[in-house]
Amino acid sequence: MSKARIKAAVVGANGYAGAEVLRLLSAHPRVELVAATSRTHAGKPVEEAFPSLPVGLTFSDTAAKELKGCDVVFTALPQTAGARLVGELTDGGARVVDLSADYRFDDIGLYEKTYGVTHPRRELNDSAVYGLCEVERERIRKAKLVANPGCYVTSALLPLLPLAEKGLLSDVIIDAKSGTSGAGRKSDEAYSYCTVDESFRAYGVFTHRHAPEISEKLGMPVVFTPHLLPIKRGILSTVYFRTNDPAAAESILKNAYVGERFVTYSDKLPEIAWAAHTNRCIYSARFDGERGIIVSVIDNLLKGAAGQAVQNMNIMFGFDEADGLPVCAPV
Amino acid sequence: MSKARIKAAVVGANGYAGAEVLRLLSAHPRVELVAATSRTHAGKPVEEAFPSLPVGLTFSDTAAKELKGCDVVFTALPQTAGARLVGELTDGGARVVDLSADYRFDDIGLYEKTYGVTHPRRELNDSAVYGLCEVERERIRKAKLVANPGCYVTSALLPLLPLAEKGLLSDVIIDAKSGTSGAGRKSDEAYSYCTVDESFRAYGVFTHRHAPEISEKLGMPVVFTPHLLPIKRGILSTVYFRTNDPAAAESILKNAYVGERFVTYSDKLPEIAWAAHTNRCIYSARFDGERGIIVSVIDNLLKGAAGQAVQNMNIMFGFDEADGLPVCAPV
Amino acid sequence: MSKARIKAAVVGANGYAGAEVLRLLSAHPRVELVAATSRTHAGKPVEEAFPSLPVGLTFSDTAAKELKGCDVVFTALPQTAGARLVGELTDGGARVVDLSADYRFDDIGLYEKTYGVTHPRRELNDSAVYGLCEVERERIRKAKLVANPGCYVTSALLPLLPLAEKGLLSDVIIDAKSGTSGAGRKSDEAYSYCTVDESFRAYGVFTHRHAPEISEKLGMPVVFTPHLLPIKRGILSTVYFRTNDPAAAESILKNAYVGERFVTYSDKLPEIAWAAHTNRCIYSARFDGERGIIVSVIDNLLKGAAGQAVQNMNIMFGFDEADGLPVCAPV
Amino acid sequence: MSKARIKAAVVGANGYAGAEVLRLLSAHPRVELVAATSRTHAGKPVEEAFPSLPVGLTFSDTAAKELKGCDVVFTALPQTAGARLVGELTDGGARVVDLSADYRFDDIGLYEKTYGVTHPRRELNDSAVYGLCEVERERIRKAKLVANPGCYVTSALLPLLPLAEKGLLSDVIIDAKSGTSGAGRKSDEAYSYCTVDESFRAYGVFTHRHAPEISEKLGMPVVFTPHLLPIKRGILSTVYFRTNDPAAAESILKNAYVGERFVTYSDKLPEIAWAAHTNRCIYSARFDGERGIIVSVIDNLLKGAAGQAVQNMNIMFGFDEADGLPVCAPV
Repeated sequence: MSKARIKAAVVGANGYAGAEVLRLLSAHPRVELVAATSRTHAGKPVEEAFPSLPVGLTFSDTAAKELKGCDVVFTALPQTAGARLVGELTDGGARVVDLSADYRFDDIGLYEKTYGVTHPRRELNDSAVYGLCEVERERIRKAKLVANPGCYVTSALLPLLPLAEKGLLSDVIIDAKSGTSGAGRKSDEAYSYCTVDESFRAYGVFTHRHAPEISEKLGMPVVFTPHLLPIKRGILSTVYFRTNDPAAAESILKNAYVGERFVTYSDKLPEIAWAAHTNRCIYSARFDGERGIIVSVIDNLLKGAAGQAVQNMNIMFGFDEADGLPVCAPV
Repeated sequence: MSKARIKAAVVGANGYAGAEVLRLLSAHPRVELVAATSRTHAGKPVEEAFPSLPVGLTFSDTAAKELKGCDVVFTALPQTAGARLVGELTDGGARVVDLSADYRFDDIGLYEKTYGVTHPRRELNDSAVYGLCEVERERIRKAKLVANPGCYVTSALLPLLPLAEKGLLSDVIIDAKSGTSGAGRKSDEAYSYCTVDESFRAYGVFTHRHAPEISEKLGMPVVFTPHLLPIKRGILSTVYFRTNDPAAAESILKNAYVGERFVTYSDKLPEIAWAAHTNRCIYSARFDGERGIIVSVIDNLLKGAAGQAVQNMNIMFGFDEADGLPVCAPV
Repeated sequence: MSKARIKAAVVGANGYAGAEVLRLLSAHPRVELVAATSRTHAGKPVEEAFPSLPVGLTFSDTAAKELKGCDVVFTALPQTAGARLVGELTDGGARVVDLSADYRFDDIGLYEKTYGVTHPRRELNDSAVYGLCEVERERIRKAKLVANPGCYVTSALLPLLPLAEKGLLSDVIIDAKSGTSGAGRKSDEAYSYCTVDESFRAYGVFTHRHAPEISEKLGMPVVFTPHLLPIKRGILSTVYFRTNDPAAAESILKNAYVGERFVTYSDKLPEIAWAAHTNRCIYSARFDGERGIIVSVIDNLLKGAAGQAVQNMNIMFGFDEADGLPVCAPV
Repeated sequence: MSKARIKAAVVGANGYAGAEVLRLLSAHPRVELVAATSRTHAGKPVEEAFPSLPVGLTFSDTAAKELKGCDVVFTALPQTAGARLVGELTDGGARVVDLSADYRFDDIGLYEKTYGVTHPRRELNDSAVYGLCEVERERIRKAKLVANPGCYVTSALLPLLPLAEKGLLSDVIIDAKSGTSGAGRKSDEAYSYCTVDESFRAYGVFTHRHAPEISEKLGMPVVFTPHLLPIKRGILSTVYFRTNDPAAAESILKNAYVGERFVTYSDKLPEIAWAAHTNRCIYSARFDGERGIIVSVIDNLLKGAAGQAVQNMNIMFGFDEADGLPVCAPV
């Protein structure tokens, strides 16, 4: 006898992150997928819009009655666009995993400055739980609203937080490189094949919105430089830092996530392909005196977005935390 | 209560196809993975050799006692190298899905000519079932030994066989393009990144070993030209043919696999990305007078190898045919 | 003392083909580049719009007086958009190499049907020379207007014309694969990095506009199927045909271009990387009875567009035919 | 009347850097290419070994008499393998551009420690000139032996040296990313297409041999982390540093190379594609208080190797410094 399934929906399922949530949920043993919304494709079968997603649903809009009775709703709308809707959904009784930045900040002023908007639901923001699964697991269990962390942020925070908590971290520089899916679905020459292929570039130097998110969670300023890789998916972050106790730092890095299925210290320097198409974060570290370097890899759409979102759901509903989530990477 | 699991092993798990079987079985709800062999890596934890595969096993060699008690063994050895071992495994009582070409041919003389060897187990060859799942499902159910079809072959046969059976097919030319994983794990300048990237080439013109396999199954000669694509995975076959009844041919192509979860006719011309990382075959057709063109896509390592192998196992053991097999493609 | 330079301009220099003409001319020993036009970027320094092209010019529009005194103008406007302008330029005394399809057809009715337009300068079309350099060299020398051939067309015609002329060719199927630059500069999700990367697709099956161009020049119908490769540049055409005299056909293919610097028969099957970033066409052939297969490679933007255009100019002005044109391919 | 040509040869022309020198020289207006050596391919026509290089030469070995009468020899042998040969060539009267690291270090002890060898020609090392063209132009003019800088080194030193000279630089971290051709011609699974494609990795963390070369030339320790990009060619270095006078530093960066054809400050952050297939270095800078970030791009095989080598030759022989060197990048 198979176990009971919860009802789930995805709002904003035509973006890359939303589409990945849809894909994961369609094969999840404890979920019944009841709705997927898309303003662009409302009324069209999902498979017609996306032949790679034969999930048997028709896109609806966010007024769809199916959204009402859901146990959990994943919201994957552009930053600030869905903050009100998230509130309405939680008001209506659903538990929500929000993939945007709208409920990620403790300091709502920092959020408003970073995104140039006024937050519509400050009280809800106060009760939202930051969904970095391995770090906030206990609070996520009971959360009504989980704010799913940013992709770059996840790759950096997982190895850095244990060091920061012990006061073993200073002078942090994060040189991060992301696959092009991180920019979302694009009709833009800057993201055309001929522009991206065989090239590589930095962007948002000193100005990217993930820097404040990392700084807030880490409790210290960081330098953060993202780059665009000519690959579809994956992030590798090279993190430079100083520490006053390298031996202690190394030991903490090696032991912080022992027993975790999705976060792994590796003696060998990890490659993006080890984590791509999985929900894992794999990192390694090297030291030279007080100087340390961490190399950390994730799949930006899985552990960096849809995968962590489903992991959050698994925690919230008491499922096996790995249900529906890939651990092994394909060739 | 979860359902009982069968014991499974993978022989030759360090090749790409074997590694993919390992990956699929490690997340299969009805399988307990008990052994993985590799001559190169015997004695080494799988995860040490392949950090992308944290399956919790240590590589053994083919003498491993774990192979003995298996319900099913997947053999993924180079052509002709494993023909004897397949025999020993079936003699020992295991059911076997063999991913090599050794047991694929009805005409053992054609096999021996094509591969330049003498077949060691002619009687076993006679009882082997050709594992093109949607076509041979009933025979696969009871098979002791299933010979998993070639990757190029699968992409071509699925759309062509229904036409051939009705006598609606002649003058077949298959222009096929495969991702580089089809060549296997390589330490060879011809398959180095700088040689393959931003390039494309034909190979095996008039001489590739998949041509006799296609011809035998189709019951007619074919021209088959494979090409090497600068992508990791996926095959697209463009098939040119003539037919004396285009309307009937079109109707058959549209209806041959209605109800199948892994084989789909598409009105739009399919792209490799629709099928990559899934177990699907998606094809479409266009006609101009008596001339027809089919475009068919699969993932060479899934529907073209490991995925179809697991689908065969699902059929053999009465599992849901989609257990452990991806249907939706990632971004 | 260096030789005298002619004055040259590029109209439509912001498209990929036009930009490549600009790049080639900027390093050409016999050319002074006097103008580059772009409707989008008129008034802007070329290097500001395209940092990869520091040619020291400012984009003008097509009314620019610099166009008037040119010895040669390259027109690289979208099909049908520039047909009138080409006429005005030739009326004004310039010699023109037109990279569009507007003046390529002998049968103007076929052109009008293929492109769905009325030709504005039928009399000029009659005097235009089809710029397949190695085939029409003598007529190009004196031409006032050269119609530069299509990229796919060039890859197919160079090996096929010598066979067609001898009546050794029938039942021609051209399965062609092109790099994504062939689609031009794009802001379109269908050509975004995440759509094209790790994928491959056919398009224009039975309907592509290069089929009539090939058929007219070859004097027989052909089946032509283009595909989109996940590379920036290069075309590989796999051509299937029948011949009543394979030995003669093979001999003609091997000898047709002996002594040519840009067209080469190769015993080994050529790869796109051998021709990419050069002005060469390299082809090989295999026979099996009356069935022949030719594999032909070019760079779609060079021998398939800008390179052949410059080669045409070299012929028209009596320069060394290889001036300013790359022969060796980069790593 | 064309100008006189010097006789040139390439030793080690089968490696990527050597092959690129060969390609550049074959189209150089002031050079007659008289020999190309390759231990592997001696006796074979270059075009037979490399169909992409129809240069009309046959590979010889290093004993070839053609090497004797050369005006200039480019040596592109693996580090330490050619140090003696370079000495013999200079003893014999040729001027040499050596692409290895053998003659790059001022401190021969640092060289010997870094490469684990004993230098065979210490006195020759003392007279060698470090071939960073824009910085050492006057000394290069008269040099008998030019030690061509490392690829990573060039991308970092060009923007950093002007700052270091003014004492405006401290706390330097170089996070560098290189295309796969930087690893050389490889038959190694680690550089196979399926390993590199869609992946990305760091290597040589705290241990790469280019760190001592950069440190010596810059006169201060640096942290240097190289990464492997899934592209063929190009390097992007992201350089983090501190400065006590950001305004002065910015001004120096903007003005250091005004008038140079191959080194350019860009207001926009440069992308690898702007410099790939050219001999340019393009860099930009951003400041936040005392913290600065430079982004610098080159083609690792051109400005990072063969291109700079030819530029050195142009300087040594009084040619136009851009002769035979590409300035504009292809699409």
